[in-house]
Amino acid sequence: MKKLFFLLLFISSFTHAQQSYSIFIEQLANEILTNGKAYDNLYYLTKKIGNRLAGSTNILQAEQWGAQIFLQYGADTVFMQPCKVPVWQRGTKDFANLYIGNKKIPLTALALGNSVGSNSIINAPLLVVQNFEELEKRKNEVSNKVVYFNQAFKVTNIQPFKSYGETGIYRRFAPSMAAKYGALAVLIRSLTEEPNYAHTGSTVYNDSFPKIPAMAVSNKSADVIWSNKNNATLKVSLQTHGKFYDSVINHNVIATIKGTLYPHQYITVGGHLDSWDVGEGAHDDGAGIVQTIEILRAFKALGYQPKHTIRFVLFANEENGLMGGKTYAAKAFENKEEHVFALESDAGGFTPRSFGFNNINTSQLNKLNTWLPLLQPYGIDKFSNSGGGADINPLKQYFKNIVLAGLQPDAQRYFDYHHAPNDTFEQVNKRELLLGAINMAALLYLVDKYMF
Amino acid sequence: MKKLFFLLLFISSFTHAQQSYSIFIEQLANEILTNGKAYDNLYYLTKKIGNRLAGSTNILQAEQWGAQIFLQYGADTVFMQPCKVPVWQRGTKDFANLYIGNKKIPLTALALGNSVGSNSIINAPLLVVQNFEELEKRKNEVSNKVVYFNQAFKVTNIQPFKSYGETGIYRRFAPSMAAKYGALAVLIRSLTEEPNYAHTGSTVYNDSFPKIPAMAVSNKSADVIWSNKNNATLKVSLQTHGKFYDSVINHNVIATIKGTLYPHQYITVGGHLDSWDVGEGAHDDGAGIVQTIEILRAFKALGYQPKHTIRFVLFANEENGLMGGKTYAAKAFENKEEHVFALESDAGGFTPRSFGFNNINTSQLNKLNTWLPLLQPYGIDKFSNSGGGADINPLKQYFKNIVLAGLQPDAQRYFDYHHAPNDTFEQVNKRELLLGAINMAALLYLVDKYMF
Repeated sequence: MKKLFFLLLFISSFTHAQQSYSIFIEQLANEILTNGKAYDNLYYLTKKIGNRLAGSTNILQAEQWGAQIFLQYGADTVFMQPCKVPVWQRGTKDFANLYIGNKKIPLTALALGNSVGSNSIINAPLLVVQNFEELEKRKNEVSNKVVYFNQAFKVTNIQPFKSYGETGIYRRFAPSMAAKYGALAVLIRSLTEEPNYAHTGSTVYNDSFPKIPAMAVSNKSADVIWSNKNNATLKVSLQTHGKFYDSVINHNVIATIKGTLYPHQYITVGGHLDSWDVGEGAHDDGAGIVQTIEILRAFKALGYQPKHTIRFVLFANEENGLMGGKTYAAKAFENKEEHVFALESDAGGFTPRSFGFNNINTSQLNKLNTWLPLLQPYGIDKFSNSGGGADINPLKQYFKNIVLAGLQPDAQRYFDYHHAPNDTFEQVNKRELLLGAINMAALLYLVDKYMF
Repeated sequence: MKKLFFLLLFISSFTHAQQSYSIFIEQLANEILTNGKAYDNLYYLTKKIGNRLAGSTNILQAEQWGAQIFLQYGADTVFMQPCKVPVWQRGTKDFANLYIGNKKIPLTALALGNSVGSNSIINAPLLVVQNFEELEKRKNEVSNKVVYFNQAFKVTNIQPFKSYGETGIYRRFAPSMAAKYGALAVLIRSLTEEPNYAHTGSTVYNDSFPKIPAMAVSNKSADVIWSNKNNATLKVSLQTHGKFYDSVINHNVIATIKGTLYPHQYITVGGHLDSWDVGEGAHDDGAGIVQTIEILRAFKALGYQPKHTIRFVLFANEENGLMGGKTYAAKAFENKEEHVFALESDAGGFTPRSFGFNNINTSQLNKLNTWLPLLQPYGIDKFSNSGGGADINPLKQYFKNIVLAGLQPDAQRYFDYHHAPNDTFEQVNKRELLLGAINMAALLYLVDKYMF
């Protein structure tokens, strides 16, 4: 009977707590949907500043804008954390043409990020292979040719991120794999099902082999190549101008709201401020940036005083170096900060569907699942034990108990825009963007109040 | 012990069944993602045929196309079910201009469906009201004016369909409410948060009052009106040309796959073939049409032989009469058919998130919920007990035990395109469209195999 009494007491007080949580989450939602500035801020970041690769003049402008807007929304402190970033520039417009016999077909192509320049135009026969296995089998045919790898997104993968994982190894490693056997340059199929654009992204050279130019071609161009794969006259003419310059200093832009009870324990939320040098970096990751800023704005507008110190971080250089995330984690350790939780939004400004957690134990996940009904009205249908984010993952190396989380919006359209010229403001829906910010704010609130 | 044995037997056989269901659903998914024609068919329906209001020449072309494609994909039978439909035409381009003093501001405006024509241009003072309550209070000011109703989507509603329900009464009833007090015409704010387009849709006249022209204006135009609401010089100049002609015969296009075990029990799946006369009717409801066709194609391609007879229906005249749905239900009753289940897709070709059920009892919903894990890998996160569809709802009147279901895709973008010139092919994402078809096909399969 006594047990029952305490059980009922527990249930009743829990329900009472849940109710008060629910009320504050509704206030957050109303504030963000009614007065939200994330969409207007995204307009400014994408249309007035534009794309913003590490080391560019645009990224400096974006840093200033970010710091100023954090102050405007009432951040307790704002500081710029220096990090040394690589400076890669695409240079003059790159191009690739296919020749079938004497017929010239311009390819929709874009040098991969970090690709070297070709010095002059490369004219060479084209070797078409399906994958690394075929490359191995035909290694004697590779020398002095351009090699095309035909790895496409597998359309039967329900989750496009799975396809990205499977084909991403070609973007990263194909150039050196082919250079090993004497290739002059590499073309890959863009990592997307979207037909019209070439999608860039980092490649990684193996220092043991010559660094050769690498380009992605659009799916339509790739289809032309693949449908002519048995034609012995295939040639390619291409030129790239990619080059690394001396590293420079960029910054993580960091705002804080100081904790009332545990000011020395830190919760981090962020996205990355840099983007590739094509398009406007709207979904990747303008969305995560303006959501991060929006959460600070909403907390301040509602006068929320967190128990823990919350850091709002616009990370530097995610795309081609991760120096922002690495510096943030190393400095946190160096400064003996205690980091308990971090949340990232870097999967586009689409309708939120779930949060993925990393470095989480079963009892923590069970506790989280009791909160799920509080987020379901705002579109989050589940919590999974796989997630995190590129910029926050380095924290795990220094803080073994930190729980990491990533917002997981619906991903079906993400790779239509990812690293491509069409990643523009127009592709982001205001309500979908704001709903992401609402669920992130709600999760941070619950974590701050109840988890640690 | 014996009970335990039977329980284990039940669990084991159920698990075995679940596994075989899971395998077939995966085959359906792979077939639709690999060989799916829904996206190409949508291209044809929207770009080659175009919008297709009841009674238009386009709808006749769409009917022929639908019947032919059902045959091409191997339907057992295809028949055209005649239904008498109203014929409303917008006529020459309608317009509305706002005057603030002598300053003329062209409004982005579109006559509501079923609106009468204005005969000549109407020039009249504009009375701006928030809602029906304000109209009542100011009824003495209404005579010989144009009345504007400022009912906007409530941005804090998480589900846009809730906003549509709340504001829809203005599109339907505002004209007669204002005509009652002598108004000459009515303007309403479009039923959307999208700023740039005027969104049409049916209005309904009360025969007790004069029928006056009714138009929707874009949110941007509505904001201009609302921000000048206290200006006593506000006038409007507008002209509409809407007119009803004699009713004609359109058709429900119906394909069947005959049931092997219960051929006289019917399962229906469909969408509506007609659309408003602006845009291309892509999300509303080209998506539901091509998904319906795709399910037949996939079932036939995989050689699936259903236990029950499945009817694939392209309904006529949903938008301004519902004569397709009404005729289908009445004929089914007249022909003494036994209808057990119906599924509709009429909420856009967006990422599927849930199915909503109607006329379902708790034990049926519990049974359904045991299948949820089979659909979750394809994006359906829940089943709800509220749903159905406009075209299938009339079946309930004749078949009291029929279970109705509606595909519920993510709805955040739906009203951006709903009944507007921008409801075009380009706004539909191929993967999102196909995932809808997959989940519909899977649900039909489970219902056919296991529910009745």
